[in-house]
Amino acid sequence: MSLPPAVYLPVVRRALVEDLGLAGDLTTDAVVPPDALASGRVVARQPGRVAGIDVAAAVFAEVDRAVAAKPLAADGDDVAAGAVLAEVAGPAAPILTAERTALNVLGRMCGIATATRDLVALVAGTGARVADTRKTTPGLRALEKHAVRTGGGVNHRFGLHDAVLIKDNHLVLAGGVGAAVAAARARVGHLVQVEVEVETLDQLDEAIAAGADVVMLDNMTPAELRAAVDRAAGRVVLEASGGITPATIRVVAETGVDLISVGWLTHSAPILDVALDLDGGTAAAGR
Amino acid sequence: MSLPPAVYLPVVRRALVEDLGLAGDLTTDAVVPPDALASGRVVARQPGRVAGIDVAAAVFAEVDRAVAAKPLAADGDDVAAGAVLAEVAGPAAPILTAERTALNVLGRMCGIATATRDLVALVAGTGARVADTRKTTPGLRALEKHAVRTGGGVNHRFGLHDAVLIKDNHLVLAGGVGAAVAAARARVGHLVQVEVEVETLDQLDEAIAAGADVVMLDNMTPAELRAAVDRAAGRVVLEASGGITPATIRVVAETGVDLISVGWLTHSAPILDVALDLDGGTAAAGR
Amino acid sequence: MSLPPAVYLPVVRRALVEDLGLAGDLTTDAVVPPDALASGRVVARQPGRVAGIDVAAAVFAEVDRAVAAKPLAADGDDVAAGAVLAEVAGPAAPILTAERTALNVLGRMCGIATATRDLVALVAGTGARVADTRKTTPGLRALEKHAVRTGGGVNHRFGLHDAVLIKDNHLVLAGGVGAAVAAARARVGHLVQVEVEVETLDQLDEAIAAGADVVMLDNMTPAELRAAVDRAAGRVVLEASGGITPATIRVVAETGVDLISVGWLTHSAPILDVALDLDGGTAAAGR
Amino acid sequence: MSLPPAVYLPVVRRALVEDLGLAGDLTTDAVVPPDALASGRVVARQPGRVAGIDVAAAVFAEVDRAVAAKPLAADGDDVAAGAVLAEVAGPAAPILTAERTALNVLGRMCGIATATRDLVALVAGTGARVADTRKTTPGLRALEKHAVRTGGGVNHRFGLHDAVLIKDNHLVLAGGVGAAVAAARARVGHLVQVEVEVETLDQLDEAIAAGADVVMLDNMTPAELRAAVDRAAGRVVLEASGGITPATIRVVAETGVDLISVGWLTHSAPILDVALDLDGGTAAAGR
Amino acid sequence: MSLPPAVYLPVVRRALVEDLGLAGDLTTDAVVPPDALASGRVVARQPGRVAGIDVAAAVFAEVDRAVAAKPLAADGDDVAAGAVLAEVAGPAAPILTAERTALNVLGRMCGIATATRDLVALVAGTGARVADTRKTTPGLRALEKHAVRTGGGVNHRFGLHDAVLIKDNHLVLAGGVGAAVAAARARVGHLVQVEVEVETLDQLDEAIAAGADVVMLDNMTPAELRAAVDRAAGRVVLEASGGITPATIRVVAETGVDLISVGWLTHSAPILDVALDLDGGTAAAGR
Amino acid sequence: MSLPPAVYLPVVRRALVEDLGLAGDLTTDAVVPPDALASGRVVARQPGRVAGIDVAAAVFAEVDRAVAAKPLAADGDDVAAGAVLAEVAGPAAPILTAERTALNVLGRMCGIATATRDLVALVAGTGARVADTRKTTPGLRALEKHAVRTGGGVNHRFGLHDAVLIKDNHLVLAGGVGAAVAAARARVGHLVQVEVEVETLDQLDEAIAAGADVVMLDNMTPAELRAAVDRAAGRVVLEASGGITPATIRVVAETGVDLISVGWLTHSAPILDVALDLDGGTAAAGR
Repeated sequence: MSLPPAVYLPVVRRALVEDLGLAGDLTTDAVVPPDALASGRVVARQPGRVAGIDVAAAVFAEVDRAVAAKPLAADGDDVAAGAVLAEVAGPAAPILTAERTALNVLGRMCGIATATRDLVALVAGTGARVADTRKTTPGLRALEKHAVRTGGGVNHRFGLHDAVLIKDNHLVLAGGVGAAVAAARARVGHLVQVEVEVETLDQLDEAIAAGADVVMLDNMTPAELRAAVDRAAGRVVLEASGGITPATIRVVAETGVDLISVGWLTHSAPILDVALDLDGGTAAAGR
Repeated sequence: MSLPPAVYLPVVRRALVEDLGLAGDLTTDAVVPPDALASGRVVARQPGRVAGIDVAAAVFAEVDRAVAAKPLAADGDDVAAGAVLAEVAGPAAPILTAERTALNVLGRMCGIATATRDLVALVAGTGARVADTRKTTPGLRALEKHAVRTGGGVNHRFGLHDAVLIKDNHLVLAGGVGAAVAAARARVGHLVQVEVEVETLDQLDEAIAAGADVVMLDNMTPAELRAAVDRAAGRVVLEASGGITPATIRVVAETGVDLISVGWLTHSAPILDVALDLDGGTAAAGR
Repeated sequence: MSLPPAVYLPVVRRALVEDLGLAGDLTTDAVVPPDALASGRVVARQPGRVAGIDVAAAVFAEVDRAVAAKPLAADGDDVAAGAVLAEVAGPAAPILTAERTALNVLGRMCGIATATRDLVALVAGTGARVADTRKTTPGLRALEKHAVRTGGGVNHRFGLHDAVLIKDNHLVLAGGVGAAVAAARARVGHLVQVEVEVETLDQLDEAIAAGADVVMLDNMTPAELRAAVDRAAGRVVLEASGGITPATIRVVAETGVDLISVGWLTHSAPILDVALDLDGGTAAAGR
Repeated sequence: MSLPPAVYLPVVRRALVEDLGLAGDLTTDAVVPPDALASGRVVARQPGRVAGIDVAAAVFAEVDRAVAAKPLAADGDDVAAGAVLAEVAGPAAPILTAERTALNVLGRMCGIATATRDLVALVAGTGARVADTRKTTPGLRALEKHAVRTGGGVNHRFGLHDAVLIKDNHLVLAGGVGAAVAAARARVGHLVQVEVEVETLDQLDEAIAAGADVVMLDNMTPAELRAAVDRAAGRVVLEASGGITPATIRVVAETGVDLISVGWLTHSAPILDVALDLDGGTAAAGR
Repeated sequence: MSLPPAVYLPVVRRALVEDLGLAGDLTTDAVVPPDALASGRVVARQPGRVAGIDVAAAVFAEVDRAVAAKPLAADGDDVAAGAVLAEVAGPAAPILTAERTALNVLGRMCGIATATRDLVALVAGTGARVADTRKTTPGLRALEKHAVRTGGGVNHRFGLHDAVLIKDNHLVLAGGVGAAVAAARARVGHLVQVEVEVETLDQLDEAIAAGADVVMLDNMTPAELRAAVDRAAGRVVLEASGGITPATIRVVAETGVDLISVGWLTHSAPILDVALDLDGGTAAAGR
Repeated sequence: MSLPPAVYLPVVRRALVEDLGLAGDLTTDAVVPPDALASGRVVARQPGRVAGIDVAAAVFAEVDRAVAAKPLAADGDDVAAGAVLAEVAGPAAPILTAERTALNVLGRMCGIATATRDLVALVAGTGARVADTRKTTPGLRALEKHAVRTGGGVNHRFGLHDAVLIKDNHLVLAGGVGAAVAAARARVGHLVQVEVEVETLDQLDEAIAAGADVVMLDNMTPAELRAAVDRAAGRVVLEASGGITPATIRVVAETGVDLISVGWLTHSAPILDVALDLDGGTAAAGR
């Protein structure tokens, strides 16, 4: 469940450059005494699953190494509203400068982890796992997929480069499920899994015969999914996909599919409300 | 309402590098004939406000200059479900490679523009404008603020660098509204506006007396907001902020405030569902 | 008056890469024993205003963390010829490698701060402030604008992105002062100031009526400037601009304008002569 | 005298990003009709030597490929006040957006070329060449050294990496001129020249005996320089250095030295005043 | 077998920046007339397998879009000594500037493809495939793995990120083959393959029982490999690894293993000798 | 013999990003306990010359500052098979993550240094020096040229930017040896050496007369080389080039040439086999 600094530091630096522009933090420069010290707590305003605590801590350190940001919760922890996620102490100016960027990244990652956790809970006991998709925020895929893992979900492929997924637009050009799977099988290395999207049970047979590792069942009804599970009989991993919501996911999971992928986790899950409370005051919503 | 290529191309390139990794598009390489041509349409699956159409078109061009991506809708257009936003034609392989990245950026930008438009409609006739915040996605602030403008909203400051906003954490360290505003006024250039957050009418008076350009009224009730509007009597711009939702925004707007800022627009608005329909098939949900 | 490391470190790194190329410091490698230690002082060879001392210190640290560069003067200090601005101690090789880059950046920033300070002194007591322009060195705008602030000047806009300035080339295309100001006013957010350049008193009236925040009076005679000040009667900020020199700035300031902008500060001010004196020798001019 | 695009394009892009920030060109967006066309001329307001015309043209193309920027003068041309250096035509908006960045880079490069040309003229007929130093603007060394060449000067080393220059700070640590030159000679490749700074004729002898290619005579009087020229008798290249001005350069040149290096060329030469005159108006000073 | 420009262009640009430094191509600038035209051919001096022809062509285009570099051979072609791989025509200066960089990248990629092809030929008919490793040149992994594919080999994992490979250093820390495989199986997504290195047949059994997809047989004798093939009986993919050379690969292949991985392909294969022959002369070895 | 961190750290970072992708080190994450500690040794599996030990150590520090990588050998040391080059200790996970990247860079640099050392030994006593060429790996020139120096070789030019080398393709366009050398001499600075390639003794005379500093004798027989040495009589540096191998280099060296350049050193020398042995196990070949 690790996210290496080499992966997230460029994201942090870009976010700070966005915020600082060329002029830096005009407000803090103007109103905070240069030698003022401050201490405070990063706090969850809502209950949720923690993700990205190291990334948030790194924001403070990037602005000024003299700021000590100490996590009190770890990625994967479930916390209540009001829980302290980290303590921050040091020179006041860089703490205020880093605040919004740290909260932006933390809120987003916790939001995704929490949404994932909640979907995972909905399918508990069914054997189905919850997976993400490539419908991620440009530039944040590594962080968002880490948040999904932290929420108990499983990562689908990270990109075009690490697995084959033959979808209907490919099929139009490639000449059918069997031919496409066979072509992919013959071209890729032994460490690359081959998945294909099907719409019918016949295509499912074709996919299995051609050696697919995973078959995506797109926008099927529960009855269709159950029929597919029966037909596959454990010979391939089956993934349900397409417009699945909290309201429908349990029914899908009970069909016996192995995986349920949900684009909403990364493209539309709301953030978790997190804030920085400084001693001597209560931090309000940032701008 | 312009968003220069120099601003959005780095975002596009980072997103493509994320997706392509070192191995490129395994699926397309394996199953699409290198000389295949394709044509299709970027389509809105839901009604909404268009934003980011040039950015989406640039994704295709970045993958291969030979792909022609021609916008049929412009940023700011309101479209119905099924509307064609762009036509795409050229070699099939790069079209498939670019598809998900183009849709990811377009769906996000349209989602924000649509959410903004809908809030703007809710306050129609009141004189209040809808503003964004700095609660944006790391690395995407320029695109998200452009989407807010496209939705009819107004941009709050772009970062720490282009306006002063003195919040309660600052006030703890700076010694009161009047002193902080005066300090900021004395330090910043003539082109920089000074805003301060207040919690009471007395602080409002203090802010005006010290020369604030804008005053943020944080988490006030409608009655409090009305009192503040009366007290200010047009001497400063008044901004309401804090947990405002579609359900409450009209009431807030009718208090007479000038601006209502809503972090939700950029941190939690859902995407607009957009897809690529290739001729000869129907594009399904990406992965 | 802060300049964050996130803003200046990329400048420092680019400068070092320029100097080191692929082969590194041939001279130091060849003639300085690897274990030699050295100590010395960064010294002002001329009187002036200090700016950029943290940036210069960062150059040494970037080359080798083992070098201790300790500022003895702060940005904003006025120093005499011979003043010690910083002490440097540690391994000799990286001190020699960093020397020229550190002096280049420090000399330039002190030069601009000193030039600004001297202009500010010339207008003392008049109420006019000295401002910079966008005529800065490509890639160094943040550092140069910081130096202007350090010299007692005020920053004009940082770029095209943080304020509106409608100039005559815009007016040709936009249809007159009033229309252009009104268009800008309607389009930009509440935190963006609108400035327009005028050539006549009638245009000044038009600008004020349309809601300009600042009016630039370009290349006007002192008499014209005085007339404009009278006409504006405090309703807008007035900025004088165009070919103003040390010889003429006092007269301009006495007309009652609020701001005098001087491109020369950043495009042509000479550097302040600074040097590194190592113990056991006297550092000569670099190459 | 070529400056490859791979070398100058990063400079151009950084400068544009500085200016555009996240919000782009607020003024042009607000007041210039999107479909407006414009044409104009980049004009020299003062007489001078042209340098950087390709770089300036590239700025316009970087903002929008649809802008045609056609040089009418070439690097190395001497032009009168009012001379047209380039014609620009195309969509109005990107022309206005690119204007200041293009002029900033062009003005600086022409300024250095002109200053160099003028010094070269002062030493005409003496056999001395005018050289630059490493006292360049951080990030712009390639452009500034190109401008020196364009002005008729000769480039000293580009950095620490392409030649040896042993200065007095090195000598303190290396144990004398002869030992240092010998050490360098033994360590560097056959394509690397070795230069050493000396203060006495005895050191000059020592340098020559040890195999120096070039000897720098730092801050010597004309009489001392003449004595050094006599003593060297053509066995090494002799470079005069240290505080040489237009007022003193001729006397120095007449001593018979081969090279005169002048840091002022790149650290303090004023820009050449260049402007963009659009048809239908006259471009004024930028901001 | 595609290698997207987004993947290889950064490599090309870095290589050109290395070569051009700040001063550009001194030789071509000095001796080639600016308006000279040239044409020529990129030629193989040895027989081999072509790889990287698009990358080489891109080098010329990066230096100057006016150079037309037209491939006459495609990646995967086998060519004889003297074969023309591409034609180049256009302005002479950029052709000469690009020459060495284009040949460096092409020679390396063809060298790897040729070495791979030759190993593949040695195992023809055995059912064994030749795979690469992560022992690649820093920064060139994408290009080198493309060359291996082009040579008929199969790519092992691209990095730490796209497959699990548990090696003996992991086993020391993880507590045995079975536990490690089971832990990996439980942690990674359904698209990630799990490989483990074993030294004994008992470990092989353990790996299979725990659900490994691939088992690496490290430094085993042919007899040991045969025994492993018998024991596995097709239940996992078997990979032979460790010091395999052209002299030994056939024997290894005949043991029935599925894959033979060879680090030498990317860390030590010699380049293929390629050159640029200009019309009117014969290009000699570069420097 | 120094290689500054500013030069090699970007290479290290790119290599780590290649390996980590977006998902990081899947294997270590899955099977190594987060709090496990480890210690071990970087060991040479073959005898050779050490180069790049600081670069390898930096890889571990880049992954995690908590890893202590302590060199026990220095660049330039000759070591036996089994020699310990560095000790590594700290948290186990980052040690395993860094292992392959550290070994890749170290093995390559030691391989080049060892190959150079061996060629230098072959010409011992002859007065000839062994030089590299520009036939280096894209992106690694600084590291490879450092390795050549470490092996006792001498660096030829680093790129197109730091010396003139007129080759036959230039001569076709420039009109003969004498004219080309004279043109270069007149154009370049006093610190730039001019080399030219010749094929005949008459051209050699021409080159010397025109002021060449170095003459390359391309693909000449030993007899021809000897004749050239006689003819030059010490007036220029003579470099032999073209297809020189270990089998032929001694004969070439005995002709009296000053330099022998060998492209093979950087384009095709095999790596030195290096490995990481962790305590409690023996590290096997990486993947």
